[in-house]
Order: sequence, then C-alpha cells, then structure tokens
Amino acid sequence: MRPDQPPRRLIRAEAVLAARQRQTTLVLENAIDPHNISAVLRTCEAFGIQDVHVVAGDTAPPDLNPAVTLGAERWLTLHHHDDAVSAIAALRARGYRLCVGQLATDATPLFDLPRDVRAAYVIGNERTGVSRAWLDAADARFLIPTSGFTGSLNLSVAAALVVYDRVCVRAATAPGTGDLADTEKAALRTAWYRTLAHGSAALTRAFAAHAQDPPAPAPTFPVDRSKT
Amino acid sequence: MRPDQPPRRLIRAEAVLAARQRQTTLVLENAIDPHNISAVLRTCEAFGIQDVHVVAGDTAPPDLNPAVTLGAERWLTLHHHDDAVSAIAALRARGYRLCVGQLATDATPLFDLPRDVRAAYVIGNERTGVSRAWLDAADARFLIPTSGFTGSLNLSVAAALVVYDRVCVRAATAPGTGDLADTEKAALRTAWYRTLAHGSAALTRAFAAHAQDPPAPAPTFPVDRSKT
Repeated sequence: MRPDQPPRRLIRAEAVLAARQRQTTLVLENAIDPHNISAVLRTCEAFGIQDVHVVAGDTAPPDLNPAVTLGAERWLTLHHHDDAVSAIAALRARGYRLCVGQLATDATPLFDLPRDVRAAYVIGNERTGVSRAWLDAADARFLIPTSGFTGSLNLSVAAALVVYDRVCVRAATAPGTGDLADTEKAALRTAWYRTLAHGSAALTRAFAAHAQDPPAPAPTFPVDRSKT
Repeated sequence: MRPDQPPRRLIRAEAVLAARQRQTTLVLENAIDPHNISAVLRTCEAFGIQDVHVVAGDTAPPDLNPAVTLGAERWLTLHHHDDAVSAIAALRARGYRLCVGQLATDATPLFDLPRDVRAAYVIGNERTGVSRAWLDAADARFLIPTSGFTGSLNLSVAAALVVYDRVCVRAATAPGTGDLADTEKAALRTAWYRTLAHGSAALTRAFAAHAQDPPAPAPTFPVDRSKT
C-alpha cells in the first residue's frame, strides 16, 4: 500500500475517464450563438462525450461563455475544422457514420436510428441548418419529432436531446460505461492531471507520478464533481 | 360537405390539440434567467406539454424573451403561483404526483421513475435548487445522472431532458397521443382559433364558426407548424 493516498480529485478523474466515450460525437456547424455552443459543450462533458467537432465555416469561432460552460472545455477534445469538407473527411477517417440533423419530412426520427454504432451527429446553424455538403455526405438524416406549433428546438436543447437519447436511453441506465482504449485514457489522464494541479509545480509533479500508477476509479457524485 | 374548406392553420391547430397532454407538467421555481424560462416554454410547447407552472417566490416573474420562445407562450396554459405552498396545493388538487429535482445521492434517476403516471416535475432555481417546501412535499426526488466533471446541467437543458424522457421515451415514438378531455380541447380551441385570427374581425368570426364543427386533425410537419 502506498503511503500517500491518491488525492480525491484523481480518483474522481478516473471515474470520469472510465465513463468517457468516443462512439458518439457531436458536430456543430456554424452555430451563431456562443451561449448555445457553450451550453452544448457543458452537456457533452456532463454526459461523457469526449469529442466535439466545431465547423467554423464563414464565421470566426465564437467565444465560449465561461458562465455557461463552467470550464467544460478543459475536459473535452475539441476539433476545429475550417469547413464541412475537411470535417467530413476527418470524421470518415475516424470511422464515424454521419447522421445529419435536418427538418425534413423524410428524415428519420432520432430514436429510430441505431444507437450501437459509431456515429457523429451533425447539428446545423440556428437559422439555415446544415450546409449542402453534409446532406450530400449523410449516411442518415435525422430529426427530433415534435407535436406543437413550435417546430424548431433551440440548438442547445436539440444537441442535449441527441446526447441524452444516445447515451442515457441507449444504456437505459446512468451513463458510465466508456469506450476509450488504454492509450487514449493515458493521453487524457496526462492532460487532466496537469489541469487538476491548477498550476502548482509541486502538485503537477505529484500528479504526474500518480499517473504512472493511477488510482482505481471510485463512484462519485455530481455535486462533488462540479467542485473540481 | 361544407363549401368552405377549413383553413390550413385550423387543421394544423387540431393536430397540435390532438397531441396535447396534461399527464406531464413542469414546474419552474424561482428561475433566474429569462433565457432559461423562455427556452423551457418553447420546449414544452414543441413536445405537447400544455401546462407549465411558474413559482415566482421572492423575485418578480422575469420577462420572456420572444426571440427564444418564438411565441410558444400563446399556446400554453401558464400557471403563476406566488409561493411553493400554494403551487403544491394547486398541483395536488389537480391530482399530480410531485417529482422534485434534486442533486442528491439518494434521488432517483429520472429514467427509473414511472412514466405512465400523472406527475409534475419540479425544477429549482439555477443556483440554490428547489426550496424546502418541495422536498417536504415530494412524492419522489429525481436527478439526471451524469458522468463528467460537470455535475450540473443548464436549467433549460435539464427541463428539456425531463420533457423528452417523459414524452418521447415513454412512447418510444413521436409525441402525438394527447390526453385532453373534449371539454378541455374545446376551451383551448376557442382561445387558439382566436389567436390564429391574428386580430382580424372577419377571421375571428369565421374561425369561431369553424370551432363549432372543427376540422379533422391532419398530420403536419414541424417546419410548417412554425409558420403559424
């Protein structure tokens, strides 16, 4: 038994890491409202989606709103793409099926799309939706069926429903079963432990040592996790 | 056969009406951010939740953001309550089970709560959560389990997940089966038809006549519905 108990925040980080997944990823194309993007990052992080792809298109990537993200971007792998074509190539190279959100009568309801496949869910601009390139490349087009006068959902709401449907409904249980390979976990662990040291040189060294022999993940509770 | 075809917007209104439900209702206590409340109303309207309860508490009810609600409040029945005690009494009188959101280790995961019961889902203030009175009155306490560092969800996201889980996951299909009694439908129809006349005296009279013998609901599509 090591004389030094691993710090609680590392045990917690291991629990988060164990639940991380890359099977589902989200793509935001040209989202206008920084509040929306920030909210999407926060939701993805909360539910264990590790990768988020942001396609900037014509507009510069908007600033994230720290009051909304609560620092979620520190724990995510953000992929920036200049345009849809390069994003599509990158996602295909990573083996993702492309599921493109579209408000169209012949799009498939989200919950009818298979959940146990590696898939990227593409959510378009708040006003104009996804660009043509995505529709041409799509393996599937999906919508979230509604029944009210209001036909369109807020972007951050639509993204959250996609994540919930893919992560929670799929498991019919709490998110928690990740799919990262050990090498992927090791890379994230190195980065996260450094972040968790909050700039302290002593902690950075100590945590790097722990990273060589990481603690076992232990169940954590949301209220606690938000305090890291 | 009537010589005058019912206007398309009334056929659409009947489809929305047929999908309306009161089995699930949402309660927002003391929400601070008008953007959040507006987004929640839009989501509820989109998924066919007819009643939303707003408990103002100490703060004045915030203004709705029309850019976010897209006028959703015109189609909803909003119930304003001065405090939790009167809201609890009103909900109990309407036969609602009280499911109170709480970030607590012993709260039940949302998806484990029964879906086929008449229940009000109470979502507290962004910072402090629900007030004591709700916890004392709760028939169940729920949380939405997460697995990331970020333990808390944005309020409008949490509300949307509750609605989606109760409406879409319950049916495992599109929302669309409402539960309103004919008298409830008639009351809403009168109000909605008046709204749909957009202030025209002639249309108001014509639509009131249609309300006596309403058209059959016809499947509509979200993109169209948002244009009403």
